[in-house]
Amino acid sequence: MNRRFKLTLHYDGGAFFGWQVQPGARTVQGELEAALSRLAARPVGVLGAGRTDRGVHATGQVASALMPGKWSAAEVRRALNAILPGDLWVAAAESVPLEFHARYDAQAREYEYRVGTAAESRSPFLRPYCWALGGRGAGSGGEGGLELDGGLLSAGAALLEGRHSFRAFAKAGQPGRGEECTVDLAWWEAWEAGPLFRIRANRFLHHMVRYLVGTLVEVARGRRPLEDVAGLLAGEPGLETSAPAPAEGLFLTRVYYPDTTTRRHDDATTGRLGTPANLDDDNVA
Amino acid sequence: MNRRFKLTLHYDGGAFFGWQVQPGARTVQGELEAALSRLAARPVGVLGAGRTDRGVHATGQVASALMPGKWSAAEVRRALNAILPGDLWVAAAESVPLEFHARYDAQAREYEYRVGTAAESRSPFLRPYCWALGGRGAGSGGEGGLELDGGLLSAGAALLEGRHSFRAFAKAGQPGRGEECTVDLAWWEAWEAGPLFRIRANRFLHHMVRYLVGTLVEVARGRRPLEDVAGLLAGEPGLETSAPAPAEGLFLTRVYYPDTTTRRHDDATTGRLGTPANLDDDNVA
Repeated sequence: MNRRFKLTLHYDGGAFFGWQVQPGARTVQGELEAALSRLAARPVGVLGAGRTDRGVHATGQVASALMPGKWSAAEVRRALNAILPGDLWVAAAESVPLEFHARYDAQAREYEYRVGTAAESRSPFLRPYCWALGGRGAGSGGEGGLELDGGLLSAGAALLEGRHSFRAFAKAGQPGRGEECTVDLAWWEAWEAGPLFRIRANRFLHHMVRYLVGTLVEVARGRRPLEDVAGLLAGEPGLETSAPAPAEGLFLTRVYYPDTTTRRHDDATTGRLGTPANLDDDNVA
Repeated sequence: MNRRFKLTLHYDGGAFFGWQVQPGARTVQGELEAALSRLAARPVGVLGAGRTDRGVHATGQVASALMPGKWSAAEVRRALNAILPGDLWVAAAESVPLEFHARYDAQAREYEYRVGTAAESRSPFLRPYCWALGGRGAGSGGEGGLELDGGLLSAGAALLEGRHSFRAFAKAGQPGRGEECTVDLAWWEAWEAGPLFRIRANRFLHHMVRYLVGTLVEVARGRRPLEDVAGLLAGEPGLETSAPAPAEGLFLTRVYYPDTTTRRHDDATTGRLGTPANLDDDNVA
């Protein structure tokens, strides 16, 4: 008998070449598959809810794997954490129905992006986890914070909510299997060294959050008009995004599933919900 | 003409063999001296307020160095941050009187120690910066936090304030040049994954904060009586501390100087304050 586990993962993306297995590169999926295979004493594959790019972090990535039935969720979690490297941690493990699929069953994903405007964003404790824009000034005493217009940040985020084509905010060369995304929530809040962008959507295109943040920050620095955000969403010809914000500020923080897909049950009445709207080339951040 | 600079430093101690220059080892002092020497195009020595051990972090270490007079404080800071490795950062640079001495002039030092009792203290974002005690439980869902008795932590900290011999809380084999320290402040507060110990004193003995935290945590886990703390301070025979808490939870957060030692002035009327009470073997954490 086999058992399906849902794993909630934290990882520091700094030393990974992203989520997805690649020959010769250290990846999150690769480390996780190696550890699970060692525990199961057989090859174990892992599916992730979203494929984070090189350097992107996670505090809520979700993965699923099929393990021998003798393992309990608590045992899987403990055993994994005992052998995984320090930059990858299993925050939670749950036993879920065998048909649970980490990517197809996901209803929404949430990311946060930390922008560092305070000089201290360049501290070794913060710089690996944000886009450090502060501290480039001429001040001798550690000053040199960057001012971003908070009103423009908020106004830009508000434009994103709802259903739009995010084609302009996707990495060029991405196969065009539909660029419509429904953004449930998008706002800016504060973290210790500047503003933090939080966005939840049913799906994300490749580099979408980084293009959004790169563009919103340029607007908030007064380097381009707010109207450009609406223009980009409307597909206005000739309009381009700003450069994408760097990977190190981006965190996959949560993946949402319908209760019924994760609740353990033995009558197998609950199948996958809906059709697999999340195709292979989506949800790469 | 030369100019003396006071540098306030942040460093992630994880990849350093401590503060002090050692042949063949990567140290904070070594990296800083190499960078300053490169900028000055001559050998530059650096003095630190306290010698942090291998693995100990800082968000307020202070160092002093003599540089060619053509450099301004702002230029030194910018140029250093451009060439220093990412785990060492100059938060501030100030021009100070030539006689300023980072160690002898320091009146007090402040450390914080982060204990991780929540399961999340084992996350890759927190574990390198705390003593991760949570998350060892059997829970499958990420639970497994450790309970510490907050009343006992507070009561233990309160015993430390004032002037005491901290001989029992110093690494064995340390030359006995007096073990009296005056603790101005000692308390526990909260950080995101558990309790945080903060202590300010005129001087610290080798490993003193780590022995204090190791012992107070054992008291708060109910493994030894609170009376042991008083007994250790009183030099009760046969009584020993608990094992020292690990280096990765410890941060040197601030060094205090009298205003007059750091204020720039050209009449050279203000010498070093008091006698050098901080001898060579002190203030190693």
